[in-house]
Amino acid sequence: MAGNEVHNFYAGPAKLPQPVLEQIQEEFLNFRGSGMSITEISHRSALFEEVLHDAITRVKRLLGFDDSHHVLFIQGGASQQFCMVPMNLSLPGKPVDYINTGVWSAKAIKEAQIQGKDVRVIATSEDKKFSYIPVDYTVDQDASYLHFTSNNTIMGTRWHKYPGGKGVPLVSDMSSDFMSHPIDVTPFGLIYAGAQKNIGPSGIAMVIIREDMLARVPDTLPTLLKYTTFHEHSSLFNTPPTFTIYVIDLVLRWLEETMGGLEQIEKINRQKASLIYDIIDKSEIYRGLADAGSRSLMNVTFRLPDSELEKRFLAEAQKHGFIGLKGHRSIGGCRVSIYNAVPLDSVKSLADFMEEFEKTSA
Amino acid sequence: MAGNEVHNFYAGPAKLPQPVLEQIQEEFLNFRGSGMSITEISHRSALFEEVLHDAITRVKRLLGFDDSHHVLFIQGGASQQFCMVPMNLSLPGKPVDYINTGVWSAKAIKEAQIQGKDVRVIATSEDKKFSYIPVDYTVDQDASYLHFTSNNTIMGTRWHKYPGGKGVPLVSDMSSDFMSHPIDVTPFGLIYAGAQKNIGPSGIAMVIIREDMLARVPDTLPTLLKYTTFHEHSSLFNTPPTFTIYVIDLVLRWLEETMGGLEQIEKINRQKASLIYDIIDKSEIYRGLADAGSRSLMNVTFRLPDSELEKRFLAEAQKHGFIGLKGHRSIGGCRVSIYNAVPLDSVKSLADFMEEFEKTSA
Repeated sequence: MAGNEVHNFYAGPAKLPQPVLEQIQEEFLNFRGSGMSITEISHRSALFEEVLHDAITRVKRLLGFDDSHHVLFIQGGASQQFCMVPMNLSLPGKPVDYINTGVWSAKAIKEAQIQGKDVRVIATSEDKKFSYIPVDYTVDQDASYLHFTSNNTIMGTRWHKYPGGKGVPLVSDMSSDFMSHPIDVTPFGLIYAGAQKNIGPSGIAMVIIREDMLARVPDTLPTLLKYTTFHEHSSLFNTPPTFTIYVIDLVLRWLEETMGGLEQIEKINRQKASLIYDIIDKSEIYRGLADAGSRSLMNVTFRLPDSELEKRFLAEAQKHGFIGLKGHRSIGGCRVSIYNAVPLDSVKSLADFMEEFEKTSA
Repeated sequence: MAGNEVHNFYAGPAKLPQPVLEQIQEEFLNFRGSGMSITEISHRSALFEEVLHDAITRVKRLLGFDDSHHVLFIQGGASQQFCMVPMNLSLPGKPVDYINTGVWSAKAIKEAQIQGKDVRVIATSEDKKFSYIPVDYTVDQDASYLHFTSNNTIMGTRWHKYPGGKGVPLVSDMSSDFMSHPIDVTPFGLIYAGAQKNIGPSGIAMVIIREDMLARVPDTLPTLLKYTTFHEHSSLFNTPPTFTIYVIDLVLRWLEETMGGLEQIEKINRQKASLIYDIIDKSEIYRGLADAGSRSLMNVTFRLPDSELEKRFLAEAQKHGFIGLKGHRSIGGCRVSIYNAVPLDSVKSLADFMEEFEKTSA
């Protein structure tokens, strides 16, 4: 199947910007005149350090911060952050607070519990199968931090307005909507995001940590599990995934220079999401899983009336080149992941297909 | 500079086999007819699972084992293994034994100490700046394990005969000579290797763990720091670095099918190393850093009579396209890293250059 016949809606690893892929291919055997592949170059070389520096600078420019926070690259994806966050940021005698909005929140909570932290789940949407974002909860300004998942890849919900956190540092797993819209990083003690949704290939988490959080890191932790290690060595304490960081840099450049930054990409993301939600809202066969007020712009989830029709929908979609529409194995159904790099045209084609499918299946 | 003018001797990330790089480039926009890049494909797709399975099967075939040991892919490189090994494999009331042969051994030792384990360094070559591999030590069969670094990238030494370990499981950091010669995995409770020397890009460690070691893993560890998590989920508990594993699979295929396996590659590696050691042995300006009986086949280290001449040597080498010859920043001098993928011709060219340099500098 040729690239132009395929529409990639995988939930992650996911579509990357086509111009980025083409550039990688073009310079793969000879990175910037070095005569070597980017995969073969020392992480201590000037060539690679320039890539790393450029990526960090772009993150800061795109999100609009400077010295208040630091950008770190840490292996292990978001899953490793689930355990590093409580390990590094919990304060003695102070609870760690979490809001549970689904599978990924629950995993983060579990890792804090494994460590014996005083974990409080101050809100949950489990009563309605995580189909909404809780609004009724009280933030305790005295907790170590308040953790939430900004976008829930599996259920297709997102926080439209983040919890207020005057005194308590917010910590957020932003894996699946990081860099898809502007955010104010000020109240965040820490933000982390597995790269494989919006910013690059799998195998890394980008971590944004506020300066004051570094003082919390206990000396007694293993070296590679301390945020301070990554901060003090500019993410070069040990060999980082150099290719992955190179691709992230290219994606950030595309986001900044081709797409025009976060406000622009958010507009397009809203447009893309609306195309699918509009069909769901007027459909008699597609039933959205997320409450209207909590809908994700990145992962649109829905079900069909019965599993027979669902199977047929997925099979026909696949035949037409729409890949990755099967919902997460834990809940089934269908899911359309439309991260930054998924072209508007792919979403339009899918919308057309969905309408056509509804007509013919009536 | 074009690829054919460059000879890559980086210590890691390092040279990858040229045919592998060319294949990656060729199929980068359309992986095996999928219409997608390998970097965009779900780790749960049949396409990727085939890659993962193929890589594991090749490791087992190349090293000649089957169900006795398991192959795991874990993020964080060898540095994360420094802390995972004692965390997972130390037994209550039993010491953990280490042999110190340089910087990387010392880092492994430090991580066991941070965790408060009963660490015993049963041998060290620190007295002679780690220029040799200790031969005089007693293995305590009752320790939790005995850890050693099979090849010391910085000093350029290697174990030619591994410690005997009738009862005690051997644990080895094989990062820099993994897959460069045949080994018998039987006595090893665990082998780990950062990929970026002989088997792929940076961002992953390959771990080979013996079945009986899995029973040692404490339940109380964070999920992502337990070997059992990776074993039980076939390295797919969380999203692995898919591109990296894909490249590793290609490198293993090249090793098996093009180079003819580990015995064959060892012959070539010996030939390559001899070319440089022969020059050192008859030279009046190149002075080898490793004792003759402990010499590495992967990293050849040497110094010149004074830092002025050393600087000139490195500068001229660079001008002639010989990249990465500067020794590790902790010891200075020169280092030639000649992993599997460095072509014999590159080493011949360097040998010629070294001879020529000696003549003209006399």
